[in-house]
Amino acid sequence: MKKNKDKGLGIDAEKDEFGDRYTQILLKAELIDYSPVSGCYILRPRAYAMWEKVQDYFNRLIKKDGVKNVYFPLFIPESLLNKEKEHVKGFSPEVAWVTHAGNSELKEKLAIRPTSETIMYSAFSKWIRSWRDLPLRLNQWANVVRWEFKHPLPLLRSREFLWQEGHSVFALQNEADEEVYKIREFYEDVFKNVYAVPVIKGRKTEKEKFAGAEYTLSIEVFLPSGKAVQGATTHNLGQNFSKSFDITFLGKNEKKSYPFQTSWGLSTRSIGIAIMVHSDNKGLVLSPRIAETQIVIVPIFTEENKKEMLGAAEEIKSKLNNYSVEIDTSDKTPGFKFNDSELKGIPIRIEIGKKDLDKNEVTIFRRDTLKREGVKIGNLADTIRKLIDDIHNNLYNKAEKFLEDNTIFANDITKLKKSISEKKLALTEWCGDEKCEEHIKSETGGAKIICINEELKPKKNCVYCKKKAKYVVYVAKSY
Amino acid sequence: MKKNKDKGLGIDAEKDEFGDRYTQILLKAELIDYSPVSGCYILRPRAYAMWEKVQDYFNRLIKKDGVKNVYFPLFIPESLLNKEKEHVKGFSPEVAWVTHAGNSELKEKLAIRPTSETIMYSAFSKWIRSWRDLPLRLNQWANVVRWEFKHPLPLLRSREFLWQEGHSVFALQNEADEEVYKIREFYEDVFKNVYAVPVIKGRKTEKEKFAGAEYTLSIEVFLPSGKAVQGATTHNLGQNFSKSFDITFLGKNEKKSYPFQTSWGLSTRSIGIAIMVHSDNKGLVLSPRIAETQIVIVPIFTEENKKEMLGAAEEIKSKLNNYSVEIDTSDKTPGFKFNDSELKGIPIRIEIGKKDLDKNEVTIFRRDTLKREGVKIGNLADTIRKLIDDIHNNLYNKAEKFLEDNTIFANDITKLKKSISEKKLALTEWCGDEKCEEHIKSETGGAKIICINEELKPKKNCVYCKKKAKYVVYVAKSY
Repeated sequence: MKKNKDKGLGIDAEKDEFGDRYTQILLKAELIDYSPVSGCYILRPRAYAMWEKVQDYFNRLIKKDGVKNVYFPLFIPESLLNKEKEHVKGFSPEVAWVTHAGNSELKEKLAIRPTSETIMYSAFSKWIRSWRDLPLRLNQWANVVRWEFKHPLPLLRSREFLWQEGHSVFALQNEADEEVYKIREFYEDVFKNVYAVPVIKGRKTEKEKFAGAEYTLSIEVFLPSGKAVQGATTHNLGQNFSKSFDITFLGKNEKKSYPFQTSWGLSTRSIGIAIMVHSDNKGLVLSPRIAETQIVIVPIFTEENKKEMLGAAEEIKSKLNNYSVEIDTSDKTPGFKFNDSELKGIPIRIEIGKKDLDKNEVTIFRRDTLKREGVKIGNLADTIRKLIDDIHNNLYNKAEKFLEDNTIFANDITKLKKSISEKKLALTEWCGDEKCEEHIKSETGGAKIICINEELKPKKNCVYCKKKAKYVVYVAKSY
Repeated sequence: MKKNKDKGLGIDAEKDEFGDRYTQILLKAELIDYSPVSGCYILRPRAYAMWEKVQDYFNRLIKKDGVKNVYFPLFIPESLLNKEKEHVKGFSPEVAWVTHAGNSELKEKLAIRPTSETIMYSAFSKWIRSWRDLPLRLNQWANVVRWEFKHPLPLLRSREFLWQEGHSVFALQNEADEEVYKIREFYEDVFKNVYAVPVIKGRKTEKEKFAGAEYTLSIEVFLPSGKAVQGATTHNLGQNFSKSFDITFLGKNEKKSYPFQTSWGLSTRSIGIAIMVHSDNKGLVLSPRIAETQIVIVPIFTEENKKEMLGAAEEIKSKLNNYSVEIDTSDKTPGFKFNDSELKGIPIRIEIGKKDLDKNEVTIFRRDTLKREGVKIGNLADTIRKLIDDIHNNLYNKAEKFLEDNTIFANDITKLKKSISEKKLALTEWCGDEKCEEHIKSETGGAKIICINEELKPKKNCVYCKKKAKYVVYVAKSY
C-alpha cells in the first residue's frame, strides 16, 4: 500500500474503512466526481459506459418480452402527486419542488419526479378503454430526484439518479403477480450475467414495501462490508392506483373493472453495488462484461525500441477486434501503468516486453486474481476468449462463496445479535408482527429485516416474541 | 377526407392548416400525448422508438470519432449559472427554479439545466491540467427544461425536451473550428440518412447565435408550411467559458493557456421536423430507417379462412426477419386497417388476400407513393430490401425538390416581401448590420435571417440599406 500511496495511485483506506475505500476508488478510477450540489454526482465516461451496457442488456430482455420504451415529463403537479395517499406520504418528504419559472411564480408548484406512477397513470386512464388495450407494458429510462437528508454516498444514495422504471397494467390479478416475479428474474439476470453479482431474492415486509404497493419483491446484495443493499425492486400495486386514478377497462363480458398494475425499477445504484462487491485495495475490479475497456496493452519500451514496441502493440490489438482494447502509449514507467490499469479495474492487461516478443510471447495479467501468465502470440485470441468468461465466472463464484460463508442461521436473539455484530447476513424466523420487526432492529443496533425468503418455510418460533413464526427472513445492517 | 372523418381516422385539417394537422397527426398516430403540465408532452412508444434510432446512429458516429458519453447533474446552483454573463442573460428568463426540498427551503435556489455548459465546465476546470488532458470531448443524452412563454407545440417547442449535448475542449483555436464543422456534418448525416430530410447549412447572425458563443453554426429545415425551423446547432465558444470558469492547461511549452471550447446539440425537435416534412393528409409518413414498425402485414380473412390467412401472414413474416414487422390480426375491416396503417405512417404494407395467395402473390402498398403492386412471394424478400432504400430516397428527393422549388433569390426588398408572403425561402444579401436585420424582420412581417450561407459570396448590395453586402443569407418565417 505504501508504494502505491507514494505515487498518488492505489487506495489508501484500510480494508475495514469500506465506505472510504469505495469513495476513493470512485474518484481515483475516474468513475464519479462531486458536483456543486451536495448529493448530486457526475457520472464520468467509465461509469456511464457501464450504465450503457446495462441499458443495452436490459432493453434486449424487456423488448423481446414486449415492453415498449416511452418518455414521460419530469414535472408532476402537486395535485397529481397527492392522488394516491400512501404514495404521497412515502415520497413527499423527499420531493424537490419547482416554484418559479424565469421571474414568474408558478400557479401550482411542480414536483420533480421521484418516480412516475402518478404522471403515467393519469395518462393510462385516458388510454385504457377495453380489454383490447391490455396488457399495457411501458418502460422509461430517466433521471429521478429524491432529496434525501441522510448522508449521501455516490451511486448508492444520491439525490438525483438514473434508472429505468417499468409500469404495466393487466386485466387479471395473476398476470400482475407473474409480472413482478418475471421482471425480478430479469434483474437477477442483469446482476448475475452483467455485473457478476449474486443476489438474494425476497419479499419486502409491509413496513418496507413501496408506498402504495400491495407488495414489493426485491433483489438484495450482501456486501463485503457486512451490510446489505437493495439492488432492484418490483412492486405489485394491485388496484390501488387504478382506483385512485380511475383507470378502468371494459372486459370481454362488457363489465367495467379496475385493472391490476405493477411498477419496477433498476438504477445506477447497481453500478455502485458491483463496485463494492468486487473491488480490492488496489482499486476497481470489474467483470469484462461491464468494463468499458476490457483489455489494456502495455508495451514496455526504451527510447530506442519505442517505435518497434508500439508497432507490436498495434499488431496485437488488431488480433483482438472483438474486444474494447486500449494501448497505453504514454511515456510513464511500466510500474505506473500497471498500477493505473489495476486502479481502473481493467480486467485483462497484456504486457509486451522485448525479450518475450522475440520469443513470440506476451504476458497476460488478470486483474481478478492478480496473476501473470506467459502466452504465445499465436494462442492469444483463444486465451482471451476463454479469459473473458473465466474472469466473469471467477468474480461471480468468489462473491457467491462470500455470500454463503457469511449467511448464518440465527434462531435466537443472542445468536442474531452476535451474527449482526460480526457483520454477517442472518437468516431467522419472524412472526410477521411489525412490533417484533422494530424490536429486532433496536436489539441488533439497527439491522433490518431486509426481505422475507419466500422459498424457506419457518420451522420454529419468532426470534423475538417466541410466538409461531410465519416467515423466514434475512436480517442485516443495510445502506 | 370525409370517409376518413366518419371513421374517426385520418386527419381532419385542411392542407393549409399546417400546425393543426401536425398536432392531429401526433395525437392520432399515438406519437405524443399532452401531460397535465402545459408545454410538457409524453413521448409514446412510436415517438420514443424514433429517438432511440437517432441515439443509436448518432452514438455510433461520435463514439467512432472518440467522443465519450457521460452524465452530469440536472441541477445547477444559481451562482454557477451566473458565471458567464452573456450565457445567463440568454437563459435565465426561461429557467425553472427549484426552491424547496420536502418542507425545507434550499439555501441557494437551483436551476433545472436549460443546457449544461456551466455545470460541466466547473468540472472541466478541475480535470484539465495539461495538454495531455486535451482534447476532452464529452457528450450526454439528457432532458433539459426551457420554460418558454410562447405558444408551445409538441416536439417543436416544448418546455422539457430530450437532447444530446456535446462539449469539447481543445488546445488550439483551429481544432475548435474544425469540431463545429465536423459535428454539423454528423447532424446533416442524421437528417439525411435517418430522417430523409434535406437541410440548409449556415452560420447564425450575431443576434441569433448561442448566448456565450463566438459563433454558432446550424442546420435549418424548410418546411411545407413555408416556415423554417432550426434543426441542430454547433457553437464555437472560443475562450469565453474557459476564462469565466478558469479552465487552463499547461502547454508543451510549459506555458499556461485558456483552451478553446465547443458545444453542440440535437434534440427531439428533430422528430417533429421529420414529421412536418413528410406527412400528408392521410397522416404520418416516415422513412423505413426511422419507423418503429417498418412493415405491417394485413391478412384479409373471413370467419372461415381466418386461421389459414393468419398462418400465411406468419409465414410471410418469417421471411422478413431483418425488419420490424407487425401483423394486424384484429377483427376490424381491411379498410379500417389500411387507414390505420396509413395514419401511423407504416412505410410498407403487405396485404394478403385469398385469391392472390392461391397465385403465390401478395400486394405491397407503399405509404410514400400510396401505390399498390402485386409481388410473387418468392420475390418478396428482394422487393422489400430494395423498397426500404427506395422509400427513403424517394422521401429525401421529394423534400429536396420542394426545397429547391421554393428557394427564391430575392435581391430587392419588394421581391423579398413577396417571396415571404408566398411562403418561400428567400436568399438575399445583407450588409451585416443588426439594424438592417431588424428592418428585414419588420418589413416582411416577422421573417428572420435564419442563417448566413457560407458558401455563396455576395455580389450586390444589402437588400435593405443598399450598402455593400457582406453576406448571402436565408430569410424565412420560422418556428
